[in-house]
Amino acid sequence: MDINSDLGESYGAWRMGDDAAMLDIVSSANVACGFHAGDPAGILQTLKQAAARGVAVGAHVAYPDLAGFGRRNMDPSSAELVGDVIYQIGALQGLATAAGTRVRYVKPHGALYNTIAQDARQAGDVIEAIQAVDPQLTLMALAGAPLIEWAKERGLRVVAEAFADRAYNEDGSLVSRRLPGAVLHDPQQVAQRMLQLVQTGEIETITGKRIRLQADSICVHGDSPGAVEMARCMRERLLQAGVSLQPFVSMA
Amino acid sequence: MDINSDLGESYGAWRMGDDAAMLDIVSSANVACGFHAGDPAGILQTLKQAAARGVAVGAHVAYPDLAGFGRRNMDPSSAELVGDVIYQIGALQGLATAAGTRVRYVKPHGALYNTIAQDARQAGDVIEAIQAVDPQLTLMALAGAPLIEWAKERGLRVVAEAFADRAYNEDGSLVSRRLPGAVLHDPQQVAQRMLQLVQTGEIETITGKRIRLQADSICVHGDSPGAVEMARCMRERLLQAGVSLQPFVSMA
Amino acid sequence: MDINSDLGESYGAWRMGDDAAMLDIVSSANVACGFHAGDPAGILQTLKQAAARGVAVGAHVAYPDLAGFGRRNMDPSSAELVGDVIYQIGALQGLATAAGTRVRYVKPHGALYNTIAQDARQAGDVIEAIQAVDPQLTLMALAGAPLIEWAKERGLRVVAEAFADRAYNEDGSLVSRRLPGAVLHDPQQVAQRMLQLVQTGEIETITGKRIRLQADSICVHGDSPGAVEMARCMRERLLQAGVSLQPFVSMA
Amino acid sequence: MDINSDLGESYGAWRMGDDAAMLDIVSSANVACGFHAGDPAGILQTLKQAAARGVAVGAHVAYPDLAGFGRRNMDPSSAELVGDVIYQIGALQGLATAAGTRVRYVKPHGALYNTIAQDARQAGDVIEAIQAVDPQLTLMALAGAPLIEWAKERGLRVVAEAFADRAYNEDGSLVSRRLPGAVLHDPQQVAQRMLQLVQTGEIETITGKRIRLQADSICVHGDSPGAVEMARCMRERLLQAGVSLQPFVSMA
Repeated sequence: MDINSDLGESYGAWRMGDDAAMLDIVSSANVACGFHAGDPAGILQTLKQAAARGVAVGAHVAYPDLAGFGRRNMDPSSAELVGDVIYQIGALQGLATAAGTRVRYVKPHGALYNTIAQDARQAGDVIEAIQAVDPQLTLMALAGAPLIEWAKERGLRVVAEAFADRAYNEDGSLVSRRLPGAVLHDPQQVAQRMLQLVQTGEIETITGKRIRLQADSICVHGDSPGAVEMARCMRERLLQAGVSLQPFVSMA
Repeated sequence: MDINSDLGESYGAWRMGDDAAMLDIVSSANVACGFHAGDPAGILQTLKQAAARGVAVGAHVAYPDLAGFGRRNMDPSSAELVGDVIYQIGALQGLATAAGTRVRYVKPHGALYNTIAQDARQAGDVIEAIQAVDPQLTLMALAGAPLIEWAKERGLRVVAEAFADRAYNEDGSLVSRRLPGAVLHDPQQVAQRMLQLVQTGEIETITGKRIRLQADSICVHGDSPGAVEMARCMRERLLQAGVSLQPFVSMA
Repeated sequence: MDINSDLGESYGAWRMGDDAAMLDIVSSANVACGFHAGDPAGILQTLKQAAARGVAVGAHVAYPDLAGFGRRNMDPSSAELVGDVIYQIGALQGLATAAGTRVRYVKPHGALYNTIAQDARQAGDVIEAIQAVDPQLTLMALAGAPLIEWAKERGLRVVAEAFADRAYNEDGSLVSRRLPGAVLHDPQQVAQRMLQLVQTGEIETITGKRIRLQADSICVHGDSPGAVEMARCMRERLLQAGVSLQPFVSMA
Repeated sequence: MDINSDLGESYGAWRMGDDAAMLDIVSSANVACGFHAGDPAGILQTLKQAAARGVAVGAHVAYPDLAGFGRRNMDPSSAELVGDVIYQIGALQGLATAAGTRVRYVKPHGALYNTIAQDARQAGDVIEAIQAVDPQLTLMALAGAPLIEWAKERGLRVVAEAFADRAYNEDGSLVSRRLPGAVLHDPQQVAQRMLQLVQTGEIETITGKRIRLQADSICVHGDSPGAVEMARCMRERLLQAGVSLQPFVSMA
């Protein structure tokens, strides 16, 4: 099993998250590419830390919206979106080379992540961009989303991810953050749920029903001391249970 | 001999230059990387046009200053400058791959170009950045500038360029734009000067003296119809005189 | 009758439109505020030219999207949109004061213009922003749009505008740009249509039917030599027919 | 005596400082204007908090350099700098109006602050900008800097400030941050120094000598819990000694 988290999200004088701490927990790092967060010098530093720990690096590509942290829906043309995604992957590839590692996957961020999970046009643009710059890159996507099939049909490798601290609906979608119970706060509960997912391939929904969820990576957060602690707790529980934690891609 | 020009400098809704026309004139294209000019979709289009014509592509890296078109001096830290240069080269490499070509050289733009010609600290940062992302890249620099030796000492390939429409001082430096006669406007005169440079390795200075100028590329502009015409005139004069025009790097 | 146009849209080294020419044609200038176009020094210059000619100034507020020229839909929160609109109006007020004039109205630009014509939430945010910074400002809006009533209900002055070069549907909406005939290209036809609108309050739709259109301002473009010529032609036709051209707001 | 601090410096998803805590300590708030920090919605919130507490608001204008937090030297033309400063003051005036307060002074930030303390050209540009938008605004400047006389000669009101946690040279300049002892860390020592300054008009330099320092405001920082605590300690010491703390400008 793989654990991933969003890193490299500091910008200029502003700090966000504790990259060093998270890099001791995760096996894959979704590294910001400068469009929603991250400046080149800071990204480079995070990449060097990832390289030193053998953590796999993914390009956390986003809409060009620093003020909105890439969380606001936008409506780029296909030419714009294809160009923006290639640009970001390329920039991260350059920095990764300088850091002694390389980009192994692409995980869209925020509003782009949510949009392409369901929107065929923008999904197609992102797939086209990835294939144009490096067809060997893997796309990380929401388990159960239509995007996964679209990408596979186009010949792209895909890895599905589950969210450690989110409640699920019976159809495998995430419970909206606007609803009560959408976000889980108890580290032990989160760890237990993810251990169950790894061992059985099933997760308990918000209604109490168990459903199958095909996921090869677990997404955790590191944007607060509590979040780091929850991630660490989950990691330890998985290790204690004998689960092997490693990047979903070969680091050879 | 090689002819180079700054391209890909449109941005969003704003047009600048006639890239298609210039790509029929030059053998090397200094393509904007988004920091002083250029948006990913537009850059990609220019790169595809360059690829189709066999024109060599260079990364036209700059300070992060869109409002100032990269022409204003800035004072980045070494970590910032190294990161910014790697980021831009990588972004252009990604787009170049998508366009079916690749980045073969780096030409700093505007204030960064002028600064590193003389400033050892920032020059060292740019050299370090280039070597970190791809030591095979060539650095394009002002003929006669201290930068050329600094780069060679560090093991970097360098190509020196002359400016077609600029007057030269006796020490080989460019006459300041603030002085009368600094910029040449007569296409025939410019063509004649450059032919002389190619044939003799010498150029006539503003004082009338002839000096040696070691240059393997000639920089022309395309930011006005007159500039395009001047470049075309020079190209034709060189071809008529039997000068072979091709990129200074192998396109194999 | 008032004629308005979008001005101040150059940015840094990039030129757009011929502000000086258009300021001799229009009575109201929608001046960019830096979010979709315009840099402070260029805006200030346009404002000084407007002040010298007695042309009324409006704040052409937009989504924060320079790369997309404010033409891409975005989904800001209410707090973000209110803040962004106030910020832009204030910035233009400051520059207008320095130019010896003042901001008299607000015309949202591009995607924001189209969105708030129909979207009650974002419309309410823009109305709230205008009232928070200066309740005396007039809102310029698309003739016939729901926005007009929403703004009036909230106590805001509104001026409705017609588009000189656009075809209309029978319900008073604009024919989509994607459909044939949506944009008119014949200066004489455009001038005639607008004269008819001024004299009768009616406009001929794309189906040939005449409908009433309540408009106190006519929007013209200046982004090409042809557009400037069309605007000038219309202005002269209106003047020849005895129509008085002046800002819709008092310049006292 | 007045106490001032830099506020409104969060940006989008990134937090910086504890504005609410600092607004209970200071009498004047230097509020970011979006060029080095601050987004409109966040600035508006800080302004409302300042208005509620009767804290005076100043425009913390800066170079356009979000990535560098306005701390990097830049070389704008006079037209650019004048425009940028007016734009920022105007934007903050608009937001201040919406918050029920108004901008009473201007304090340049970071590299711009340091540059205009000594550089007559850029200082003149800032003075011109302030006078163009509102000649009643006060300029806050480094005690002892040439800027103070330049501004007074041009008819601008000026308030000089001392830095609570910085060591001084015998000529009244700040000890460079690169030298040992440049920054003071003991809250009690800082409080004692500032009380001495208020009571005697003198400050002890790094060499132990006492010099006169004409200052009407004391600058404190709030960018860490320790900084907030130091500021609170100083405020309490001054109040206990009977010093009256209030804005240097009338809030009527």
